Amino acid sequence: MSDLPTAENVLAAGGRLAAESARYTGFGWMRGTSGNLSEVVTRDPLRLAVTASGLDKGELAATDVAVVGPDGAAVAVDGVEPLVPSAEAGLHARVAALTGADAVVHVHALSAVVAGHHWPKGVLLRDVETLKGIGRLAHDDEVLIPVIANSQDMVELGDRFEAAYDPRTPAVIVASHGLYTWGPNLRRARHVTECVEWLLSYAIAIR
Amino acid sequence: MSDLPTAENVLAAGGRLAAESARYTGFGWMRGTSGNLSEVVTRDPLRLAVTASGLDKGELAATDVAVVGPDGAAVAVDGVEPLVPSAEAGLHARVAALTGADAVVHVHALSAVVAGHHWPKGVLLRDVETLKGIGRLAHDDEVLIPVIANSQDMVELGDRFEAAYDPRTPAVIVASHGLYTWGPNLRRARHVTECVEWLLSYAIAIR
Amino acid sequence: MSDLPTAENVLAAGGRLAAESARYTGFGWMRGTSGNLSEVVTRDPLRLAVTASGLDKGELAATDVAVVGPDGAAVAVDGVEPLVPSAEAGLHARVAALTGADAVVHVHALSAVVAGHHWPKGVLLRDVETLKGIGRLAHDDEVLIPVIANSQDMVELGDRFEAAYDPRTPAVIVASHGLYTWGPNLRRARHVTECVEWLLSYAIAIR
Amino acid sequence: MSDLPTAENVLAAGGRLAAESARYTGFGWMRGTSGNLSEVVTRDPLRLAVTASGLDKGELAATDVAVVGPDGAAVAVDGVEPLVPSAEAGLHARVAALTGADAVVHVHALSAVVAGHHWPKGVLLRDVETLKGIGRLAHDDEVLIPVIANSQDMVELGDRFEAAYDPRTPAVIVASHGLYTWGPNLRRARHVTECVEWLLSYAIAIR
Repeated sequence: MSDLPTAENVLAAGGRLAAESARYTGFGWMRGTSGNLSEVVTRDPLRLAVTASGLDKGELAATDVAVVGPDGAAVAVDGVEPLVPSAEAGLHARVAALTGADAVVHVHALSAVVAGHHWPKGVLLRDVETLKGIGRLAHDDEVLIPVIANSQDMVELGDRFEAAYDPRTPAVIVASHGLYTWGPNLRRARHVTECVEWLLSYAIAIR
Repeated sequence: MSDLPTAENVLAAGGRLAAESARYTGFGWMRGTSGNLSEVVTRDPLRLAVTASGLDKGELAATDVAVVGPDGAAVAVDGVEPLVPSAEAGLHARVAALTGADAVVHVHALSAVVAGHHWPKGVLLRDVETLKGIGRLAHDDEVLIPVIANSQDMVELGDRFEAAYDPRTPAVIVASHGLYTWGPNLRRARHVTECVEWLLSYAIAIR
Repeated sequence: MSDLPTAENVLAAGGRLAAESARYTGFGWMRGTSGNLSEVVTRDPLRLAVTASGLDKGELAATDVAVVGPDGAAVAVDGVEPLVPSAEAGLHARVAALTGADAVVHVHALSAVVAGHHWPKGVLLRDVETLKGIGRLAHDDEVLIPVIANSQDMVELGDRFEAAYDPRTPAVIVASHGLYTWGPNLRRARHVTECVEWLLSYAIAIR
Repeated sequence: MSDLPTAENVLAAGGRLAAESARYTGFGWMRGTSGNLSEVVTRDPLRLAVTASGLDKGELAATDVAVVGPDGAAVAVDGVEPLVPSAEAGLHARVAALTGADAVVHVHALSAVVAGHHWPKGVLLRDVETLKGIGRLAHDDEVLIPVIANSQDMVELGDRFEAAYDPRTPAVIVASHGLYTWGPNLRRARHVTECVEWLLSYAIAIR
């Protein structure tokens, strides 16, 4: 069974991506034009709506959206202006394909990059209530937020992500770069993002 | 003498809980769907309006409220949709019963969890003007913000709270978890919350 | 030559005090009901409009204002509801009388109390451009922000202020308490407050 | 080929400068009346619209703008009220002339002054993704944010800027003072400013 992304679906996703981007911008997690968000529009074939490249994430319109396939390359959709997708769209697609998540968030939250610096082999968290916010347990559950090395090659970065991926943990830190999180929808991915950021800030504060 | 919660009272409380929750969310103290707020609707029998479980605390409507009894279990009220109360409603009810407070605030303020980590036996404060904001003295008054161990069992957590409770101090830290505060109404509980958070940030800053 | 405060003048001042208070509340400098602001309404006799006691500083109306004389005691003004002035109104009046400033700001900025803890004999600043923002020089000008001991007795606190006062420096830290600043009007006092807070944050950051 | 600044062009620039200034004020980077922004109105002769001196940068109107020439001195433009330009307008003009940038941003971001204190010979950055946000590479590209000594003499400061200037790096820190950044327009200069501030905060955090 296959379906096709429609302009209506893409623009509706674009509106949600714009609203979430403005929120993260307000947190200071998308400085400059950094970071990007995506939502799966269709699964078969895999198509994602992803924030367009090079724009201020606090000022996006619903139309500031590109459509990409599994490799992150732009895909034409009738009625959607073909904008340049974020260069990192390939990793978004890889995350969506591997995890089954329909929403992927990538932000340059300072705490994530600082944590990646302090714990290059991954950030170990345990016995904190907020772990429940990312689907883990508040007690006796050892949680590792993976840290993978940065790359400009999305295939390489995707391979590193795949090697580090633990289905129980909806987040990964890209060292010297930023944070990726995911969830069944943008609101749930937001909650994961906020909780991971809180947990990393906490880990840094008590270091 | 007994009374019964009405839908009107519950929804009015829900509106106030939503407004306060949005405020704390703006402070970054309710990341993800963390934290919960409550207001006593009736004392005999004890009934609390408490924020419903699993929602973004920055986006609550007046109707995103549940009614619970002394043990935190949901209680039906005519005209109020029976939402799932926060899992921590049992502790809210316990706090309200023991302290006589009509409003209880639970937030995941980072400073509270950091302070609980640094001072697991309680945070000792003394000779700070802001102590007046929680009903204590600015001079020669030794104030201990209790720190109790975390638990998912609200009876156990309630017992710990009761053992640590000092009627002069309207706040307790749950270690690795967050902060509980209370007051005669939500505005007064807000002022206590803000002052405790300030005091804990100060204690950490001069540590 | 003498004049009398009118209700119109007092309420106009109250509106300005409310707006400035909301701004400082947004900065987190007036947590709980802490801090208070004042404006001189008449000089002969000395009468100040000061924020009323015990209210949330982010929610003041123009009518949430009291009128006090040189000792901080409430003074009746026709057409103005006699609210309780802040307990610290006596120090505001003393500052206004001694410095000639027509606006006084008192906030519980965390950086001021932290700086007072680190440098109990005063915070020495020198060779920073932002010193120009408080009327000093950016180079070769040794600026001491005085730190005075806290007290609940406004006469005692006023005496300490007078002993520490340097006409070139429009700010004083009350240890374990907060910051006082002043200026010819509320906007100028705001600029002084912001610059002092920045300078203290800087001093702490490079400590 | 030469052109002349018109009142229409100057006021349009003033509106953009006011909007950007309000944004930076919201970030806490323009405390008091600190900082100033400019936009090139004409290149031949060089004329810049620059924020007027002594005003709150969160409350500027489009008319709160002055026009200056290459040396920072005010230049009369028909239909534009001759306000006093910022004292630092001379450095803005020098930056615009040397770099070719049409927009210059000067803010008192705390992280810039703290970084200037820690690294008085310049802040070395390398292998961070956010470097792409200032036009550099994320890998194997050694980036030095120059730090120059402060001065009240804009010619002296301009000479120091010129000596430190590297065309590949659109930012310079003035020690004990603040940050200068530039770009082809105010939005791009904003993105540079945000990314540099993020990078400096990161450098300080992992120091």
